[in-house]
Amino acid sequence: MTFVVLEGGEGSGKSTQSTRLASWVSEQGHEVVSTFEPGDTKIGAQMRDVLLHGDARLDPRTELLLMLADRAQHVTEVIRPALARGAVVISDRFTPSTLVYQGVGRGLGVAAVEQIDAVATGGLVPDVVVVLDVPDDLAEARVATERDRLERAGGEFHARVRAAYRELAAERGWCVVDGSGQPDDVELRVREAVARVLP
Amino acid sequence: MTFVVLEGGEGSGKSTQSTRLASWVSEQGHEVVSTFEPGDTKIGAQMRDVLLHGDARLDPRTELLLMLADRAQHVTEVIRPALARGAVVISDRFTPSTLVYQGVGRGLGVAAVEQIDAVATGGLVPDVVVVLDVPDDLAEARVATERDRLERAGGEFHARVRAAYRELAAERGWCVVDGSGQPDDVELRVREAVARVLP
Repeated sequence: MTFVVLEGGEGSGKSTQSTRLASWVSEQGHEVVSTFEPGDTKIGAQMRDVLLHGDARLDPRTELLLMLADRAQHVTEVIRPALARGAVVISDRFTPSTLVYQGVGRGLGVAAVEQIDAVATGGLVPDVVVVLDVPDDLAEARVATERDRLERAGGEFHARVRAAYRELAAERGWCVVDGSGQPDDVELRVREAVARVLP
Repeated sequence: MTFVVLEGGEGSGKSTQSTRLASWVSEQGHEVVSTFEPGDTKIGAQMRDVLLHGDARLDPRTELLLMLADRAQHVTEVIRPALARGAVVISDRFTPSTLVYQGVGRGLGVAAVEQIDAVATGGLVPDVVVVLDVPDDLAEARVATERDRLERAGGEFHARVRAAYRELAAERGWCVVDGSGQPDDVELRVREAVARVLP
């Protein structure tokens, strides 16, 4: 029924806030399906291995098409069935991540990526996209020492990612939420953005 | 330098002819790189497992995007480097398979598939596409009893695939070669189609 997407660069606190949001929506009396990309299907988990821990020489177009293959299966197998039975779906990453990381970050172009993404999603668009935004230095400080392949891409790449989130959010009506400060305060800001679209 | 693609439905004798063609081109004094899709890269092999032996509930769009992810990596890692050093590349399947199997067979549409395929290949187009064509009853008789997931799709699907090969070949200038009769005779017909584009 309601499709909520949480977005943000590394160190934005997305995972923490995703868990907190799910608890709160559930307390409001809704069925909640918490999910994530890439990898929240059986097939997706295999692809996730290739994407995050595989060979660093993965071509950027291979990376894009794998991400979108994962999304197509995720939409069919998890998201659409949950929405159809009236659940609130909260996904940690969706289309915005691909526009930002592959379209801008890897330089494949936002328009080109968006076109292929529409095939993968079959036109499914979130009811609300919440982007957790934190200053570059705070994000860098928060990021754990053990980084996966995407995270290893370096500080400059991540600053570009955060800038792209802000820019695309302004163009596309994503809600940018200040992700700095105490988790409790951030949580209240996220709730506010999501409350508007809940049934 | 020269990019040759061999195509055909199940039971067309494609694998046999691919091997024979490679020997002949090599005898003509060219470096030959024999390759195939899906799966002739390290990452591709992992994807091939998902595609051919995985869950039968793979969404058709997931299948398409996985095939194209495999192609993007194959082009970057194998085909372009070989062509750049002057080799003759012979690939068992390429773009035509995707247009036929996913575009027509799975009903995703040839134009839509072609557009995404162009992103995967970065615009790389074969110098010649040879389609081995055999009558439906001969193809059915030739197909082994142990079929993989794609082959399990059934006789009607495969008849549709063969018809699509013929139709798209006429539109796109692919060489249709009679694949019935003795392998030696078929081999001569394949050579004739390929000889025109060899340096």
